[in-house]
Amino acid sequence: MIKAYAATTPGGPLEAFEYDPGPLGSHEVEIDVTSCGICHSDVSMLDNDWGFTEYPFVPGHEVIGTVKQVGNQVKHLRVGQYVGLGWHSGYCETCHTCHSGDHNLCASAQMTIGGRHGGFAEQVRAQATAVVPLPDGINHDSAGPLLCGGVTVFNPLVQFDIPPTAKVGVIGIGGLGHLALQFLRAWGCEVTAFTHSDKKREEALSLGAHHVLNSSNTEALEAAAGRFDLIISTVNVTLNWEAYVATLAPKGRLHFVGAALEPLNIGVFPLIMGQRSVSGSPVGSPATIEKMFAFAARHGIAPVTETYRFDQVNEAINRVREGKAHYRVVLTR
Amino acid sequence: MIKAYAATTPGGPLEAFEYDPGPLGSHEVEIDVTSCGICHSDVSMLDNDWGFTEYPFVPGHEVIGTVKQVGNQVKHLRVGQYVGLGWHSGYCETCHTCHSGDHNLCASAQMTIGGRHGGFAEQVRAQATAVVPLPDGINHDSAGPLLCGGVTVFNPLVQFDIPPTAKVGVIGIGGLGHLALQFLRAWGCEVTAFTHSDKKREEALSLGAHHVLNSSNTEALEAAAGRFDLIISTVNVTLNWEAYVATLAPKGRLHFVGAALEPLNIGVFPLIMGQRSVSGSPVGSPATIEKMFAFAARHGIAPVTETYRFDQVNEAINRVREGKAHYRVVLTR
Repeated sequence: MIKAYAATTPGGPLEAFEYDPGPLGSHEVEIDVTSCGICHSDVSMLDNDWGFTEYPFVPGHEVIGTVKQVGNQVKHLRVGQYVGLGWHSGYCETCHTCHSGDHNLCASAQMTIGGRHGGFAEQVRAQATAVVPLPDGINHDSAGPLLCGGVTVFNPLVQFDIPPTAKVGVIGIGGLGHLALQFLRAWGCEVTAFTHSDKKREEALSLGAHHVLNSSNTEALEAAAGRFDLIISTVNVTLNWEAYVATLAPKGRLHFVGAALEPLNIGVFPLIMGQRSVSGSPVGSPATIEKMFAFAARHGIAPVTETYRFDQVNEAINRVREGKAHYRVVLTR
Repeated sequence: MIKAYAATTPGGPLEAFEYDPGPLGSHEVEIDVTSCGICHSDVSMLDNDWGFTEYPFVPGHEVIGTVKQVGNQVKHLRVGQYVGLGWHSGYCETCHTCHSGDHNLCASAQMTIGGRHGGFAEQVRAQATAVVPLPDGINHDSAGPLLCGGVTVFNPLVQFDIPPTAKVGVIGIGGLGHLALQFLRAWGCEVTAFTHSDKKREEALSLGAHHVLNSSNTEALEAAAGRFDLIISTVNVTLNWEAYVATLAPKGRLHFVGAALEPLNIGVFPLIMGQRSVSGSPVGSPATIEKMFAFAARHGIAPVTETYRFDQVNEAINRVREGKAHYRVVLTR
């Protein structure tokens, strides 16, 4: 039996819960969870915001742990090894996107917190292909948020071959944005933080931003016309996207990793005139997670976390739900 | 004096007009115009749709002709040589985009039909850098529309490194779309024409489409979910863009070369889930025009044109204004 924390109703409290995971599959891995980040999507799923949550529901998809046991076909992981598990816990491995290395876009990818139980537990299981070894130099207690928030902002740099000469802006300095600033600074880029909070100015600079632009200052936005090769938006609110498109350099890209809920209302002409793109992407593939871990270890990049014990999970969840986390919350033993 | 056809009022008829071009600049070229395409943007400028037309106004930016004279610093063109001149007739040559070879995105690019007189004339002048030699194998009488309509649809294939393995759709089988089909077929792609006109079905197939999809057939659009790596939209009307985004494969791109006038109303979530892009681009750079000419010559690609004499210019203009051209109108001697 696996001991976990589960909610039995939408938005309900997490309570002690045990389940029988059955025999370990030949390509599966069972992980002893040592820490697990709390992502806002855990709260969305807990609250059934997306309408497909199954209860009892065990959240947790930013898992750090050690391999407890492996299926008889698993050759690349050994018991006791530190590993990470993120949003996806398996892929079809046979579709064109999987064949292309784009497992994160696989239409049949399995969710760590959908159709199975997640990482707010003593153990969690996943297909071995979705379990990524942690290299030396990664702090086990704080690394969890790299598995979802981290790879989500790291992924576009890989996908679009962003060069270190690029000027890159980050909208929203929170759970995702504070990691984006660190990655981009280490990537060699000229980094600008867009934030509507002057309070975050010093912190954005300390996280790696060269410049901080107060996005509620219309004149400052206008003065940045034509500047950015890439802007990564991590927010889910509606901003004046046309104003941001205007800050893109020729061939620039406004890229969404935060799911702004209202449709974009963007004119075609500014896209045409500057050969600009608007795009989005989800979490990354296992290969991208591997690259991210190696990069983060080499450059000392780590989430800024608040730590709670697993038995404080409801308090920790509320911290995330209320948007007060600075910047990510992690459950540890 | 240069003999031309000019309008003196918005939407007014073109009438015989002479102007003194002054001494030839050291980096300029004067072209004897042998033929000139009529693009819908000539009509838009003639009608002052964009609000910055200067009168008397001489249209014409799809120019084919022979070099009449060159400035004393022009070394790469010789008198008598066949050349083409498109939307741009000069670039700053000093900005970052020009230095990068992206002259077509130069903020100071000079328009052939703005701030100077265009190609509905016996001669036209331009900076030598914007004048591209015609290779052997290009039909001088029909090639004009390649200079604007042609390079506009060819350019995205170059800009985005579209591989011959790509599945590409073209929205709108008209002046631009009929050239896109030809280019894409020769490029090696699987080509789908989107058209709301069943009448154009056979013609789209003959121009290079492997498939024709009636875009007013909602079921057919839905059945194409996840298929296309690239869709090039050549229309300027508002379609159900979300439905087209849904037909994009993972990493697919919906690319606008037609300036749809209303803002796009596209949700962020479908972009994120499939790592999809929405983008636009204008005409191409001189280097891209050179590549296009070589490719068109090698593959026998040519605009389908209706021919009028220069002194039938008003009749020809009306043909374009009424959207009746099949597919492009060219003025010849």
